[in-house]
Formats: sequence, C-alpha cells, structure tokens
Amino acid sequence: MIATETRQAISDLYANYAYYIDADRLEEWLDFFTPDCVYKIIPRENAAAGLPLSVMLCENRNMLRDRVVSLREANIYNLHVDRHFISGLRIEAPENGVYPVQANYAVYQTTAEGVSMLFSVGAYDDKVTFVNGVPRFKEKIVVIDTAAIINLLATPL
Amino acid sequence: MIATETRQAISDLYANYAYYIDADRLEEWLDFFTPDCVYKIIPRENAAAGLPLSVMLCENRNMLRDRVVSLREANIYNLHVDRHFISGLRIEAPENGVYPVQANYAVYQTTAEGVSMLFSVGAYDDKVTFVNGVPRFKEKIVVIDTAAIINLLATPL
Amino acid sequence: MIATETRQAISDLYANYAYYIDADRLEEWLDFFTPDCVYKIIPRENAAAGLPLSVMLCENRNMLRDRVVSLREANIYNLHVDRHFISGLRIEAPENGVYPVQANYAVYQTTAEGVSMLFSVGAYDDKVTFVNGVPRFKEKIVVIDTAAIINLLATPL
Repeated sequence: MIATETRQAISDLYANYAYYIDADRLEEWLDFFTPDCVYKIIPRENAAAGLPLSVMLCENRNMLRDRVVSLREANIYNLHVDRHFISGLRIEAPENGVYPVQANYAVYQTTAEGVSMLFSVGAYDDKVTFVNGVPRFKEKIVVIDTAAIINLLATPL
Repeated sequence: MIATETRQAISDLYANYAYYIDADRLEEWLDFFTPDCVYKIIPRENAAAGLPLSVMLCENRNMLRDRVVSLREANIYNLHVDRHFISGLRIEAPENGVYPVQANYAVYQTTAEGVSMLFSVGAYDDKVTFVNGVPRFKEKIVVIDTAAIINLLATPL
Repeated sequence: MIATETRQAISDLYANYAYYIDADRLEEWLDFFTPDCVYKIIPRENAAAGLPLSVMLCENRNMLRDRVVSLREANIYNLHVDRHFISGLRIEAPENGVYPVQANYAVYQTTAEGVSMLFSVGAYDDKVTFVNGVPRFKEKIVVIDTAAIINLLATPL
C-alpha cells in the first residue's frame, strides 16, 4: 500500500502538471522535473514492440527548457489553448525511492477560431521521485495512441 | 497540506455536482451552492485579460433557481443528455475558511438522435466553503475555452 | 463517511479496470470480477425507464470469459486501441458489505489508420465487494448514452 500522503502528493503533481501547461506557464512547469529528467514521446506501436524510437526526446531538464525557449521564440505553429484530462492514476510500489506511475491522458485544443477538438489521447508511463519531500518527474514517457499527430506537436502533452 | 477528510469531501462535492446535472436533477443540484453564491460563465479570453464580462451571471442561489425554472418551463433548446468529466482538482490553502479550487472540465452531449459529441471544455475556478461540515460552492466561475458555444448554452456546465 | 483506505482501494480498482482493457490484457481483467458477477450494458433510455432490456448481459464471470475468448478467436471487428477515462467516482455507504459505486466514463478509440475519436460516453452503476480484502466487481452496469454504438461493440466498455 502507498501511504495516503504520498498518493495525494503525486496526485497533486499531475494536477499541477496539467494546470501549468494549460495556463501556458511552461517556464514554471519545468520545475516539476528533476535536473536529470528524461521526457520522451513514443508512438504506441513502438512502445508495444519495445522499440526505443521516440518522436521527441529530452535527456535532461536543460533540453526541456530549450524546447520551451524555442516554442516561445522560434517555432511556428497554430495558436491554440490546451486542456488536459488525466485519469486512472496507478502508483506502484517504489524502487529505491522511485515510484512508477501510469495514467491515461486526453488533450483537447481550442483554436483561435474558437473550435474545441480532441488533439491526442494516450498514456503516461512515468517515474516519480521525491526531492526535499516534494514529488518530481524523473522520467516522463508519453505514449501517444497514434503517430499521426507528430507534425502538429508544439506544446507539451 | 489540506487534510485528507477535507480533500475527500471537496472531491465528493465535484462528483455530486456532475452527477446531479447529468441525471437532470437540477433542483437538487442547487443545494450544492450557498444562498449567497456567485455562478458565472466567462470566455477564456476575458478571464485571461481580467475582464469581468461574463456570458452568464447569477449573483445568488435564487437567481440560479430562476434559471432552472426557466429551463424547465420556458426555454427552447435541443434536447440532449449531458456527461461531465472533471479532472485535476487543485485545492489551495483556505482563506477565512474558504478554499480556492481549480479543475478542468469537459462536457459531452448526446442528442435525441443518438450522437455523442464534445460540447465544451474549460476550467472551473471556484471558492468552496463548509456549511455545517458539508462543502458548498460559494463561487463557481466556469471559464469556457471558446465563446462559440454561448448560443447553445442551456443546461449548466 | 467511507474510510480512506476503502476509497483508495476502490479508486485503484477503477484505474486497474481501465488499464487492463486499454492494454488489451482482458484475460487478467476478468480477475476484477467475482465469480457470480453480473456485467450488463443498457442504453440510457432503458435505464431511465427502469426497463431491464440490455444490449449485453453476462450473468457470471464464465460468461464474461466466453466473451473474451470469442473476441480473441471468432469476432470480426475493426482493429483499434481503447483509451478509458473515468471521472466522478461516487462511493455510497455499503449494504451487507457491498458498495454501490457510480462514475462517468468516456472511451476513445484509435483506428489502425491512426485516427483517434470518441467512441462512447456514459456511466457506470456498479456494486463492489471485498474478497480477501481486495475490491471486486459484483455487478457492473454500463449505461451507454446512446444505443447507436451497439453494432460496433467489441472490446469492453
């Protein structure tokens, strides 16, 4: 059994993760990761086959920060608003203080023209560790149910 | 840290809020609000700009009751069934016994012809207070991600 | 009030229920039911009218197992990947150790061509019992918001 306080803290981490992306506060969102974090997006077909091929890979928080900077300054993409739904949090017993956590996610986007639509569904397959008593993502693997959205990826899933 | 019992009671409030709307038991749903409650729907653009302009505003529970009565007796709208999804509950530390609470919502509607579709996504930005030990909405602000649905608003979000 | 441990165990049951369907591990998913379980799918119109007419009915776990075997070996259906979202868990006080539990669900499917779309929304109206300290579904009633999807039903909701 995972202690209630631990469950609540990890549950809050996911609520905050979604909140800061959806509020477009990505610079603060970076704080939810450890400095040595891995952030990876993999199509479900690859994940099922155990293939390491990812459509996005950041091997530490600085790489993730570079993505945010590039999003702010350089990338050209459809302006939109994100809305995350995270469901079915599964927290497994920790190994060396690191908790494997899985959940399903759905991201909706609303365009500048005012159309809301489903953008991506898939699952998180994460590792969460506590730093000074606060949970942080040591590893975040986003398994997208279809690779068809790759070219549209801009803001984080 | 918010006490576990408080978290659970507030979490239950949101589950009940959704349940009673989706079951079309709006008269009972009114009981989840305080008599002096504010219920407001704002487009995201306005909320982000700090503009007070709302597309719907009830400044107490009697006004909210009037809306329900009018829905039952007078309004003409597409018959449909609602289905709410609420995700990412964030309960902040209380000020004078009032808890700021945020969450994302998605509402699906199923038409009389049997088509289910996304109706609205957005966020709740609420204030919850305890009355005789039971949590109630003192303020419910629904931030809709697009104002495009305004003319279709009938049942509560 | 439901004890925190009980809430967490039942919440985990729903997370696992979704996880094992979405991972296509249906043989293991059967273990979340009691041997004498009832699994039933009813259109919302019938449920509201108190009509017993269901579009699918398994009156024990062996019947449910037969469905899984038939899905694996005989059924012809569109290959797809499921993704479940369960929201608004409401756990009621137990009667003779059996907890009535309600929740909303949404199921997305992603086709082999890589298109993700909403498949079904509706509600669960369940009975959960503890077997050797572990929660199991004694009754699972899936109320679908539209009967229009009946012919497309293959994997469990």
